Amino acid sequence: MPKTVDHQHRRETIARALWRVVDGRGVAHATMRVVAHEAGISLGQLQHYFASRAAMLSFAMDFAAEQRAARVQRGLAALGEHPHPRDVLRLMLTEMLPVHPDARATSRMSTAYVLEALHDKELHARARDGLRQARTAVEDLVRQAVADGHIAADRDPATETDLLLALTGLTTLLELDVVGPAAARAAIDSHLARLFTPPS
Amino acid sequence: MPKTVDHQHRRETIARALWRVVDGRGVAHATMRVVAHEAGISLGQLQHYFASRAAMLSFAMDFAAEQRAARVQRGLAALGEHPHPRDVLRLMLTEMLPVHPDARATSRMSTAYVLEALHDKELHARARDGLRQARTAVEDLVRQAVADGHIAADRDPATETDLLLALTGLTTLLELDVVGPAAARAAIDSHLARLFTPPS
Repeated sequence: MPKTVDHQHRRETIARALWRVVDGRGVAHATMRVVAHEAGISLGQLQHYFASRAAMLSFAMDFAAEQRAARVQRGLAALGEHPHPRDVLRLMLTEMLPVHPDARATSRMSTAYVLEALHDKELHARARDGLRQARTAVEDLVRQAVADGHIAADRDPATETDLLLALTGLTTLLELDVVGPAAARAAIDSHLARLFTPPS
Repeated sequence: MPKTVDHQHRRETIARALWRVVDGRGVAHATMRVVAHEAGISLGQLQHYFASRAAMLSFAMDFAAEQRAARVQRGLAALGEHPHPRDVLRLMLTEMLPVHPDARATSRMSTAYVLEALHDKELHARARDGLRQARTAVEDLVRQAVADGHIAADRDPATETDLLLALTGLTTLLELDVVGPAAARAAIDSHLARLFTPPS
């Protein structure tokens, strides 16, 4: 394996170890030492790949976002060549919720990262930029759907985008067993059904 | 001051000190020692009021919920004798979002508590019970609004309740400066306007 590929592979292995620690024990336990142990490497080896805990967290967060995007892409491929924007949004939103183990790991990683970001300027800027990019992608999709007549022209794309992203608030209800995955999906379907005009 | 009142007063002072630590530095820093220092008392004195960090966190969480409920009650009093259910829900939802310093402190306390609860069975049960109670209160309000003709009869009260509670997902957007308070309020208003049938 070429050296750069091996380097990236090692970093991803470490990121997955970090997710497991965050998922199973909480971000407070995710020290460099604990993550190195979970990844089966020495602390010195881990420090070769990440100079600081913040750098490790940021990489693990970016990797979680990539993995979520890859799951959405696989879902989209199954929808055929011209998927309806409602189905694209359903996929994006569902993959952000902890309704299956992979999504739970990336969701918990995101929540932990946001909480750490509240008290770390550099992490805050990274988390903010990531969420702004995601917000822009959703708003572009909403604006295109309005232009294509899938969403009524009197809907405000910025507000609709905020309401769509707010649906990630179902995460807390799911994590605390206040609603189950079926109810969360029903809520998303109901919101999307009212956002999109009925097919003519 | 009678002893029981003094006891409760001291516990609330400690809870507020804990909120300040969680708000300013993050829950990982909220050890018994740090909170005692923030409250201006000795560790021994703090242990007289709370036997464990979990007991302290749970009290601070309950106190946050009470303070939020008190803010909602004050807002309701300003709405007059028979407030519209839409205005009641707007108040409840707005006070759950970090749009002013008091609400930010209680919101961050809630988020931190949920994250700790993911890895602590006792905290999980308490957080779950609290959120279930809140969910029931909102669902009762929605069912009554349907019965009174404020919400169309074809809306499913359970799903509408989940969608209302999901709006707390705006918290992340606010905390990361991806949307401002005005946009968050606009999103809530827009959601409520579509939930309630126009006044006849």
